[in-house]
Parts: sequence; C-alpha cells; structure tokens
Amino acid sequence: MREMRVGPTGFHDVRETNLGVVLRAVRTHAPCSRAAVAAATGLNKTTVSSLVADLIARGLLRETGESDERRVGRPGVMLALDDLTIAAIGVEVNVDYLSVVAVDLLERDLVTRHVTFDARSAGPDASAARIATAVHEVVADPALRRRSVIGLSVAVPGLVDSPAGVVTRAPNLAWRGTPLRSLLKELMGADGPATMPILVDNDANLGAVAEYRGGHLARTGDLVYITGEVGIGAGVLMNGELLRGSAGFAGEIGHVRMVEDGPACGCGRRGCLEALAGIEAILRTALPDRFPAGDLARADLGDLVMTAVERATAEDAAAVDALHTAGAWLGRGAAMLVNLVNPAAVVLGGYFVPLAPWLLPSCRPALRELAFAPDAGGCVVETSVLGLTAAARGGAVAMVDAMESGRLPLPPPRDGGAFAADEGAS
Amino acid sequence: MREMRVGPTGFHDVRETNLGVVLRAVRTHAPCSRAAVAAATGLNKTTVSSLVADLIARGLLRETGESDERRVGRPGVMLALDDLTIAAIGVEVNVDYLSVVAVDLLERDLVTRHVTFDARSAGPDASAARIATAVHEVVADPALRRRSVIGLSVAVPGLVDSPAGVVTRAPNLAWRGTPLRSLLKELMGADGPATMPILVDNDANLGAVAEYRGGHLARTGDLVYITGEVGIGAGVLMNGELLRGSAGFAGEIGHVRMVEDGPACGCGRRGCLEALAGIEAILRTALPDRFPAGDLARADLGDLVMTAVERATAEDAAAVDALHTAGAWLGRGAAMLVNLVNPAAVVLGGYFVPLAPWLLPSCRPALRELAFAPDAGGCVVETSVLGLTAAARGGAVAMVDAMESGRLPLPPPRDGGAFAADEGAS
Repeated sequence: MREMRVGPTGFHDVRETNLGVVLRAVRTHAPCSRAAVAAATGLNKTTVSSLVADLIARGLLRETGESDERRVGRPGVMLALDDLTIAAIGVEVNVDYLSVVAVDLLERDLVTRHVTFDARSAGPDASAARIATAVHEVVADPALRRRSVIGLSVAVPGLVDSPAGVVTRAPNLAWRGTPLRSLLKELMGADGPATMPILVDNDANLGAVAEYRGGHLARTGDLVYITGEVGIGAGVLMNGELLRGSAGFAGEIGHVRMVEDGPACGCGRRGCLEALAGIEAILRTALPDRFPAGDLARADLGDLVMTAVERATAEDAAAVDALHTAGAWLGRGAAMLVNLVNPAAVVLGGYFVPLAPWLLPSCRPALRELAFAPDAGGCVVETSVLGLTAAARGGAVAMVDAMESGRLPLPPPRDGGAFAADEGAS
Repeated sequence: MREMRVGPTGFHDVRETNLGVVLRAVRTHAPCSRAAVAAATGLNKTTVSSLVADLIARGLLRETGESDERRVGRPGVMLALDDLTIAAIGVEVNVDYLSVVAVDLLERDLVTRHVTFDARSAGPDASAARIATAVHEVVADPALRRRSVIGLSVAVPGLVDSPAGVVTRAPNLAWRGTPLRSLLKELMGADGPATMPILVDNDANLGAVAEYRGGHLARTGDLVYITGEVGIGAGVLMNGELLRGSAGFAGEIGHVRMVEDGPACGCGRRGCLEALAGIEAILRTALPDRFPAGDLARADLGDLVMTAVERATAEDAAAVDALHTAGAWLGRGAAMLVNLVNPAAVVLGGYFVPLAPWLLPSCRPALRELAFAPDAGGCVVETSVLGLTAAARGGAVAMVDAMESGRLPLPPPRDGGAFAADEGAS
C-alpha cells in the first residue's frame, strides 16, 4: 500500500512529479493548450500554468505560433516540447565497435556515430578512455551547441550491476568487475561532463527500450530484443517495463545450454546458444577460409558479415548452411522465450539484420514447432530497423524517460548552473 | 499517463477503490484504530469512518474488544479483519487428484480436501461435474456455515485463457478448448453458487501466488514455483506480480526442449523437460518393475511416489539414479530460469517435495554450474511447504486478493442479496 505524506519535503516531490506529468501530457498531445493539459491530467488550470512556466524556464517546453483552431473565441497559445535545449547521449561499447547517439527531447537523432574499436584488446581502462573521448567529441559537435546534456548512458554486452555502475561480467570483452561509471566520472572530470548522470546498463536491455520507444514495433508492451553480435543477449519488456530479475541479470539467453558437449562458449561453458548462433559462431562456419588458425580479427566483424551476405546471396553452400543452422537455433531460443515469458514479438537486432534473409526461413518454423502454445502464443519474429545504433539510442532515450518520470533531476532554469554543452567541451 | 475523471460514475469507482485501500491497511496494521488507518492511507478521518462503517456492514471488518494502550486519553476502538463472514474456494484438478481449499478473509484454511480422481479418464464434462460436486460439498461444510462465498477458482495443469475461462490445452488431461467456466456455471446453476465469480487459471501460476502469500518464502517478490506432477509448469512472479505474457501462456518450462531425440512428451514433442523430469518420467525409471507394459495407472501416482521414496531410502540403485538424473535436469531448468528471468528463489512443489532429498543434491550443483550469473544470480532452490494443496490454496487466496484490489466486487451489506453458503447448499 502506498502511503501518502504531505509536507514541506513532500511538496517538492509532488511538484517534481507534476512537472513530469505535464511534460508527458504535452509529449502525448502536442500541440496542445494549457487547458488541454489541465483536462488530460486532472490538474487545475492555475497549477498547470505555473508548471508550464517552470518547464519553459527549464527549456523543456515552448509556446508555438500555432493556435487551437477548434477553439471558440480568442485563440489559445499552444504548447510543444522544446527540442532545442537539451540532449541525452547514449554509447554502446561492443566487441568490435563503439556506437554513439545523441537525441533531443523529441528523441530524434542529433548525432549518430559508429566507430570501429576492439574493446577486448584495449581492456577496460583504455576502453573507458575511448568512450570518454567519444562523449567529448559528441558534446563538442555543432548539433549540440547551446544544449544541456541531461545524462549519458553506456550499454555493455554482459552482466551489469546497473545501480552500482559496475560491469559484473562481460566475457566477450574479457571484463569482470569493471567499475565503468567511476572510471568515466574520473575521465570526464576535467571539463564539465563530470556532473552528468551516468547510467551503465546491459546492451540488450537498452536495445529493447529503443525498440519499444521508436522501432517499427514501437509500443508493443511484451517484446524481446535479441542482440546479434559475438554475444547474444535478450532485453525482455513485459507491459512496457524491463524485466530485470532480482539481481538485474535477466535476459542472458545467450548462455542457456542448448546441447550437451556443444561448441565452446566465451563464458567457459559448452553448448550455449551464442556458441551455436552468435555472429562469431556463424562466421566461423559460413566463412571457413577466413579462419585458418581459428582466430578472429574482431575489428573486422562488420566486413566479415558483409562477406557472408555476399556469399549467401551467391548461394555459397557453406554460408547458406551455416545461416540455416543458426536460424534454427535462434528459433529454438525464441521458442524457449515463448514458453517461459510469452512475448508478442521477438526482434532480432545487430548483425542478425543483414543476415535475416537466410536466418528467418529456418528460425520461424523452429519457433512454431517448438513453442508449446498454439501459433507460438501469437509471437512474431521480426528484424530491427534500428541497426547497430539500437542500444546506444535506447540508452539516450532511457535518459529522457528517466528525466520525465522523475528518476533523473530536471535541468535547472536556463540561467542556472547546468552543464551546458557549448561551455564544457573545447 | 493516467487520466483522472471525477463524476457520478467515477465517484463510485473511487469509493470502491478506497474500500479496498482501507481493507488492505487493516490487513497490514491490525489491530489498529480508525485514526491509524487515516494516517496510513492519507484519507481523512471522516472518510475513513464512513468507509469502515461500510466494510463492517459488508462483514469484512469488525471492531475488537482491544483498545490502543499507547493512546493518550480515551481508549480508541480497534479494527480487525472479520474472519467469520466470508470464504473463498480454490480447486485444483490434476492428473490424479482434485484438491479443494476454502479460506477465510485472513487466508487461513477453513477446509482442505484431497480427492483421488483420474481427470484424464473422466474427460472434461465428468471432471467439471466432479469439481461442481466437490464445491457443493465444501459449501455445505459446517466450517462455511453463515459465510458468503466471494468466489471460486479452478487451477488446471496447462495453457489457460483465463479471461475467457477456457482451458486452451492441457495435454496431461487430454483437454483442448475446454470451456471450463461455462461448464461449471451451468452445473452450479440450480442452487446458488451459479452467481459466484469463477476464475480458471494455470496451476503453476496459482501455486506461485500461494507461495508468495503464505509459503516459507512469502513476500519474495521474484519467485518461481515449479509444479511437480506428471506435468511440470512454472508460475513466475516478478515484483510480486504474475508474469503472464502477451497471451497469458508464460511459464511453460515443462515443454522447453532440453535434448534432441529425447523421450516422448505428452505434448507430442520429444525431449521436453517434463518428459525427462516430470513425475511420470521419474517413476518409469525409478520403478521399472511397476511399468511392465509401459502403462501408468494415474490414480496410483501418490502411492508410486511413496514407493520411490521407500526404495531411495533403502538405496535402491534404480530409484536413486533416476532421482539423481531428474534432479540434474531440474537444475538445468532452474539455470534456464536464472539466465532468462533471474528469480531470487525457485520453489519445487507437488510430488517433488517428498522426492527432494534425492533431487536437490544434483539439482543445486547443476544450477550453479549452468547459470551465467555468479552464484546463480543469488537464486536458491527450495521445496514448498504447501504440499499438494498449493494451487488450490493459491486460487482461494487469489480471490481474496482480487476482492481487495477491486477486480472482484465486494460482498454487499450482510442483509443484502449475497449468495450465502448456508442457504445455497442443502
């Protein structure tokens, strides 16, 4: 049962909560009048006017030139989200790249960057330094001029203790117990971004957020996003909320044992789904000539995937067979998800997207065959339209959402002391 | 965003909601004064007094003789839940038994019954008739005299379309598309219980509710209950809420394929977890002499389980080996749960409980070995203390919870037209 307390402390919380309520009402209904916000929220008009004034001062709302033409009498001034004053940044560090995305309050891209980077060889410290540099570069980008950066998120392929900001274990990066948030706070201390809230989270979780907020299955509440990298992870959304589990380690579908005595996995076990259907596993079988010594130059993953696509297009037997087999394993993984959590959609992301024409024809039948519920409980398997920036975009969007729902502070009024992008980086 | 509407219709809803709020406040704090309820809920004292009067008239609260001795001045009258006026009934139908439980508002047992019954041989119609008879017998039990029955729930081992009250598929009962709620409504029409709300749900889901509300791991929010019958199902609670998935078919861990070309499963596939570690699979291997023709007399399951316990106790090799192997499969299933949803606890129920001394020594190491998260993400495997009545009790308790949270109507004032147990059955 929720207890209600009203008092000096409580009042501040109520006002912060109501600022978020008004912000979300304008997001849903814009352009809209103050009266429409009052009607939609149940707050009275005087309160709404005061909250709107506050949000305008903070650079989150603006008045538009448009008026409500349906209105009888004097035209009302309309409100919209102010898409010029804030930015949120998301970074994904994966086996072979860094991806960086900055979005505005409307969750539209301001900057997207894809940088080839071998995080495993670099190690945690150098990787953190590279992330910090990438963030500074984005903050200095002309698209972020005069914007306040409300927060930074970093997506990592592995177990993440998100409240602590620590990467518990990321076998494909060979990181273990890496205090990524602390490392980044130190690195970014000198010139401003140090004050920026930093979220560290699992890449699949943030990919799922990106799909939910802006993919082609947006607003599908029961959705699983599957990363397609060297590792395979699942971000599980139920009723639009991330399923994290008791220690925050849910969604590790890549390390479910699928067969006894299967191929070796990066985690030290055998027969895991990612050892059978992860991108490295696929490429080893699809392009046997490229792995004479069994070694993988990780920074070349993207090129190798394109080679696999070319060969499969040319009906090369090894490539087609490897993808067919991997697709069937992914279908079996999807069936496991349907049996256990019954999502409405499974979205394949990352490098699975260009390979999907050869994966899906075996994936979908395997799902239907192995799911216990008729018609796979209504679950469809689709590919992401968000490409390799899904997790980074999801992280940036998660910061906007955190601000609106009160888990991050709102930026102070514009003449206050917020970190402003055009001052911090130079 | 939640929209607030206030008006004649809305007012009724607000009052119903507040009646539930007060009821839950008293459940948490009883014995407590009206002032304490006002403090705990944020409702004002006049409103609380009116709501309490209403709840007393409906037989849900009572004033106790006790007074608040900490109170300065005139002693206040204390409130408690009225445990004398309502009852909720839960039935579980499984392969070899019917289990029936009635509870009072404090969720204490009024009646518990275990009836040997072969639902598969009986078929859906005769099974529904047997359920209706069992309900009538419980309603007529002296322990329910002068009580209003607020609702009935029926737990079934299989896919249940709970909103429709239809058993979509229960392979171990050989039911498919069985409109159980409609069948029961018709059967109970003649003498009163026809007006009783009827919930049909999956047995594992209701077992999980029972564990959460009253097992030895009560209030463990991220908990999975595993049924131990011929079939294996999982009831998954996350943050104390059942995870149902988009079509309500989540938790079917028994039908995840664990091995290629494994033993045949009741669902028509091969290698499912329940074909490897379900009770029938265990008994076939543990007691090979009892299955000369491969046939199982299902109504004897309980006796056969006791025979397996006796033989394992006497260190019979076949029994011990069968249980050791099944335990390892259950550990692998638990590891899959940890990897995908990361619960704090997995609770083994049903016939797994008496067999646990031989299952757990291989189950727990398999979980630790195969879970990706260190220390299995903090997950423990325990046995249920609720026995074969877990799902029935969970169903009865779910009706109490549904009433308190407004999903079931509150009983009308005591002189109104509620179905009263002592009138309906004779």
